[in-house]
Amino acid sequence: MQTLDLALPDTRYPIHIGRDLLKRVDLILPHLPVPQVAIVTNTTVAPLYLATLQNALENAGIACIPVILPDGEEHKTWVSLNRIFDALLEARAERKITLIALGGGVIGDMTGFAAACYQRGANFIQIPTTLLAQVDSSVGGKTAINHPLGKNMIGAFYQPRMVLADLSLLETLPDREISAGLAEVIKYALLGDDAFFAWLEEHIDALRGREHDALLYAVRRSIEMKAEIVAEDEREQGRRALLNLGHTFGHAIEAGLGFGAWLHGEAVAAGMVLAAELSREYGWLSQQDCNRIGYLIENAGLPVHAPDLGVANWKSLMSHDKKVEQGAIRFVLLERLGRAVLKGDVDDRTLDRVLTGDRVRPCAG
Amino acid sequence: MQTLDLALPDTRYPIHIGRDLLKRVDLILPHLPVPQVAIVTNTTVAPLYLATLQNALENAGIACIPVILPDGEEHKTWVSLNRIFDALLEARAERKITLIALGGGVIGDMTGFAAACYQRGANFIQIPTTLLAQVDSSVGGKTAINHPLGKNMIGAFYQPRMVLADLSLLETLPDREISAGLAEVIKYALLGDDAFFAWLEEHIDALRGREHDALLYAVRRSIEMKAEIVAEDEREQGRRALLNLGHTFGHAIEAGLGFGAWLHGEAVAAGMVLAAELSREYGWLSQQDCNRIGYLIENAGLPVHAPDLGVANWKSLMSHDKKVEQGAIRFVLLERLGRAVLKGDVDDRTLDRVLTGDRVRPCAG
Repeated sequence: MQTLDLALPDTRYPIHIGRDLLKRVDLILPHLPVPQVAIVTNTTVAPLYLATLQNALENAGIACIPVILPDGEEHKTWVSLNRIFDALLEARAERKITLIALGGGVIGDMTGFAAACYQRGANFIQIPTTLLAQVDSSVGGKTAINHPLGKNMIGAFYQPRMVLADLSLLETLPDREISAGLAEVIKYALLGDDAFFAWLEEHIDALRGREHDALLYAVRRSIEMKAEIVAEDEREQGRRALLNLGHTFGHAIEAGLGFGAWLHGEAVAAGMVLAAELSREYGWLSQQDCNRIGYLIENAGLPVHAPDLGVANWKSLMSHDKKVEQGAIRFVLLERLGRAVLKGDVDDRTLDRVLTGDRVRPCAG
Repeated sequence: MQTLDLALPDTRYPIHIGRDLLKRVDLILPHLPVPQVAIVTNTTVAPLYLATLQNALENAGIACIPVILPDGEEHKTWVSLNRIFDALLEARAERKITLIALGGGVIGDMTGFAAACYQRGANFIQIPTTLLAQVDSSVGGKTAINHPLGKNMIGAFYQPRMVLADLSLLETLPDREISAGLAEVIKYALLGDDAFFAWLEEHIDALRGREHDALLYAVRRSIEMKAEIVAEDEREQGRRALLNLGHTFGHAIEAGLGFGAWLHGEAVAAGMVLAAELSREYGWLSQQDCNRIGYLIENAGLPVHAPDLGVANWKSLMSHDKKVEQGAIRFVLLERLGRAVLKGDVDDRTLDRVLTGDRVRPCAG
């Protein structure tokens, strides 16, 4: 097991990475102010891992309230969130209860937001069960639900007390979800570490094959980079926005096709390809760089073509982005491989070329 | 105009108290990061004051999105909250928009919670239009909505950038609402300042008659006491819980009768009488003290008898209280007039005597 530490102005918390961590209640117990938890999970994860965690906790004398939600981004709504509140209040759960998120990014985001709001702030632990959640959403305290008019529009910055990234849980993950997680891994390399990008080009097959050492390195390096950026800019006043590389296009894809049609990682992958194209339009990336990015994303099992949403529709969807300021969409672009920048003054003609270019294809439907 | 300053570890903000402040956009403008606001108000307040505020802001070049919600505690729900989000997203409001709460405690609590959640944190200003909101809910950053199983169960600690307590707005307030606000004023005296209690005994008629100097003193002294306690304990880890004097009983009355049947201040008033009775059972308050408290509350135009909810029902309703820890209800009691304490080990027989005593009467229905 390896442990990283995320130090923020008001709090700090450990992120444990390793094998067979689900039964390690010794890691969890010190973070419970009262011996009561709610384990929030979904219909896919519950049959695989809920009993293991619940038994381990109950054997240690912890009362558990399981909350099993429907699986999928399309359920990241107020309706699901309210089912958590209903379960907590029906069980008369106190303010000091700990909510444990056992699931992917959707479960983590919703559980964290529920914890942020329950009696104005309950305790919260992340046990991410997907690669994407382990390398990205479980770390850093962004929590949210979706609104029909935009993804993650309703939420809070709310930090967990601990993150348990158990690589063993990835064994049951479908290949498509491994690929989706690799999209965020590639994102870290692109925005801040070209040596890591070269390492990924070498090890992409090992990662898709779930080789432990490769996964451990990729997960650790990703979390390290995220923790460093979040420590510097918890509330996304500045540098943290760079973590949204590919996400302005990606969120538009998800909203445009309907939440759940593409996995978040898939939309981000196609979005990063468009961000690379836009960076090439500004003369920052070479065609060769764009090709390398495209190859790596393709070799990760991810889409390199975005669906054609129509230029006006693209822009309308992107204008809901949380990075919009004074009406201007701010894009995360690449000055070079391994260096991202925020650009607020992208002109319409350049953007139009990208949105009607080679990397956009008619929707299959 | 008088100005108090609330200093917290992460932020500080001014609370202006005076006459004719609604048109004072010069006080508002410095707190707007972008020239766009949403004015959240209700169907009662909008016809009286929305145009004044909106015109003043628009004349200063500020874009305004008015959001008019139904009036009443029974509308302090997710449905109303979501109408704020809908309006913001339909207008493509940016993260840096300022939400202005123009209304009583319900509008203030919902607008603050909407600001806390919108894109994970928008800007927020309080313009309380009721006496209760001016002396209590607009100051200190507690925001929330109700859940069918408990009041204020879903919410956040989220501070405004400024509070504008315009006493002129109280001129249109119904007498019943003035009395409800006086309940919270009396609460401050009871929990921390016996000289203020004696002043209130002298000036209760002047306050009900809305005499400016009396109101100015009572509002200022109340906010001063609240700001001092909040500055010491923003997240209610300790002393801030004392501000809930009368509220454990009061919330049970509100939930037991259905939100909106009694005004919040009315329920708190009857709750403070029960808290005084419970304090007398412990030998802390004399019968004479209890009588003084009862007289003042009655002279403020407030109920001194709680509805008979049934002992089992009382306890069930109170067990949802946010101050419950490890199963025990924690009551705010009075050691003496002007000194409140938190008591966690109230025994059942003593509580039963109070819940079946003289200060509880059958519900009129």
